[in-house]
Amino acid sequence: MTHDHRTPVTILGLGPMGQALAGAFLRSGHPTTVWNRTAAKAEALADRGASRAGTVADAVAVSPLVIACVIDYDAVHAIVEPAAGALKGRTLVNLTADTPERARRTAEWAAGHGIDYLDGAIMTPTTTIGGPAAVVLYSGPEEVYRAHRPALASLGGTATYLGTDPGRAAAYDVSLLDLFWTSMSGLVHAFALAASEGIAAGELAPFAKGIGALLPDIVDEFAHHIDGGRHPGDESTILSAAAGMEHIIHAARARGLDAGVLTAAAAVARRAIDDGHGDDGFSRLAETLRRPSRAR
Amino acid sequence: MTHDHRTPVTILGLGPMGQALAGAFLRSGHPTTVWNRTAAKAEALADRGASRAGTVADAVAVSPLVIACVIDYDAVHAIVEPAAGALKGRTLVNLTADTPERARRTAEWAAGHGIDYLDGAIMTPTTTIGGPAAVVLYSGPEEVYRAHRPALASLGGTATYLGTDPGRAAAYDVSLLDLFWTSMSGLVHAFALAASEGIAAGELAPFAKGIGALLPDIVDEFAHHIDGGRHPGDESTILSAAAGMEHIIHAARARGLDAGVLTAAAAVARRAIDDGHGDDGFSRLAETLRRPSRAR
Repeated sequence: MTHDHRTPVTILGLGPMGQALAGAFLRSGHPTTVWNRTAAKAEALADRGASRAGTVADAVAVSPLVIACVIDYDAVHAIVEPAAGALKGRTLVNLTADTPERARRTAEWAAGHGIDYLDGAIMTPTTTIGGPAAVVLYSGPEEVYRAHRPALASLGGTATYLGTDPGRAAAYDVSLLDLFWTSMSGLVHAFALAASEGIAAGELAPFAKGIGALLPDIVDEFAHHIDGGRHPGDESTILSAAAGMEHIIHAARARGLDAGVLTAAAAVARRAIDDGHGDDGFSRLAETLRRPSRAR
Repeated sequence: MTHDHRTPVTILGLGPMGQALAGAFLRSGHPTTVWNRTAAKAEALADRGASRAGTVADAVAVSPLVIACVIDYDAVHAIVEPAAGALKGRTLVNLTADTPERARRTAEWAAGHGIDYLDGAIMTPTTTIGGPAAVVLYSGPEEVYRAHRPALASLGGTATYLGTDPGRAAAYDVSLLDLFWTSMSGLVHAFALAASEGIAAGELAPFAKGIGALLPDIVDEFAHHIDGGRHPGDESTILSAAAGMEHIIHAARARGLDAGVLTAAAAVARRAIDDGHGDDGFSRLAETLRRPSRAR
C-alpha cells in the first residue's frame, strides 16, 4: 500500500502536541480539519491550510480518520461522547496519554458505538513530529491499523504496532513515562543539590549527560536479568546502592533540600535488603516493587 | 610533564572498583601494592604482579601515592587513622564516594597529620577504568593534583580537576549519583510496571533506551533555564507533568505496585503548582526543592 496523500484527517485538541500532529498531516498533503475547545488555537493552522470546524460533530463528519490528543481520557470522553453518532463507521485514533485500563474502557465504549478504535502513544517531544526522530506506538485491531498506516506515516519516524489489546500502547506509554518523569525528577534534584553546593547547572550539565550515556547498557543488562529472573550482584549490589543513596539523602538534607524522592527509592532498596537480597544486583528491585510495601 | 611509569602506588580497598584501579595501575607499569581487610581479594592481583601488604602501614610505607576506595568515609577513617604516621608526607587520594561535608572533614584530618590529600570521585563503572570512557573528578590542592596527574592518568579517560575545595569532587559526585540512582529507581519501576501489564523487559528495553536518548537535550535546556532563573513552559508545563505522573501512579497502584518514588516526585510538582508555578516548565522544580516541604 502506498502513502495515501488524500485521506482527510481530523484533529481534536490543539495543545502543543495536537498542533504538531495537524502540522505534520498538512505538510504531507492530507486535507486536515481541526477543532479545539478554544477556537483561537486553530488560527495558525488555518493560515497553513487547515479547515476549522465549529463543533466536534462537524469536525468528525468530514474525515474517515479522526485523531484525539487532549489532556487525558476524561477530556477525550467529554469531547467524543456527544459526537458518537457522527463518529460511527469512522476510525478514532486516541493519542492522548492515560492508563492502560482507561484505554481498554475507551475501546469498549467505541466498539459499543460502531467506532473503529486505535489507541496510541507518542513517545517523543512535539518537535520530533513529522520528522525521523518521532516514535509512536499503536494498539488495537490489526486491520484498522493496516488501513490507516499510510496516513499515520505522516507523523514521521518509527511507528510500532504492539498488538490487538487496546491497552498495550498505553501500558508501554505509562511504563516509559514512569522512567521519564522519575529521571526528570532526579535531574532537577541533581541541579538543586549542585546549586546548594555552589555548582552552576551549566557546570554540572556535561557530567549529567555522561550519566545519561550510561543508561543504554544498563537497560540491556537489567532487562536481561529481569527476564531471566536472576540478579547477580557482581558489578554492584543493592547494599552498595543503598549506601550510596543514604549519602545523597544525607547531603541533600544537610543543605535543607527536600529528599522525598530518593528517600522513597532507598526504602525500596531497604525492603529488598530486609528480604535477604542485599547482595543481589539492583535489577532485583523490579521484583521487590511488585509486592506492595507493608507500610502503605 | 610526561607520564611517569615508575611512581609506586598503593591501593587500599579491593572491592570491584579497587580491583579495577589496581589493575589499571599494573597495566600502566606502576609498582602496585594492594591491601584489603579480607586478604583473599588480593590473590588475582598478586598473580598479575601486585605486591600484597599485610597491614595498612606496610602498604602505605612503600608508595608516595596511596589511593583509598572503600564503602564510605567511616571505612576510610577506620583504615587510615591507625596508619596516620606512615601516611605523613605522602599523598592520599580518596576515591571513596561520600558527602562533600565528609570530604572536607577528611581533608582537615589529613592536613592535621601532614598528609597531602586529594578527594576524588569516579563517575563511570568499573569496566571503564583504564580505558577511554573513564571519568574521574578531583579536588584539593592544585600542586598535589599536578604532581600526581601523570600517575593518575593510568586510570584512563577524562580526569577533571575541579578546584581547591576538597568537597567539590564529592559535591559533583553526590549530585550526579542523585541523578543516577533516581533514574535507576525509575528504570526498575518502569520494568515492574511493564511486567505487571505482561510486557517483558526485553520488549520495553529498546523504547527505554529511546527515553534515555532524550536526556542530553533536556539537560542543556534545564541547565539554561536554571542558570538564567527563568522557566518557560512553552513546550510542557508542571501542570501537564503532574497530570502525567498521576496517571502513572494510578496505573501502578491498580497493579498493586509500590508507587512511593513517583508519589514523592508528584508531591514536589504539586507544591510548585500550589505556589502558583503550574504553567512554568519542569526545570522550576530545582528551585521548589530548595525549600524544604512544610510537611517534613
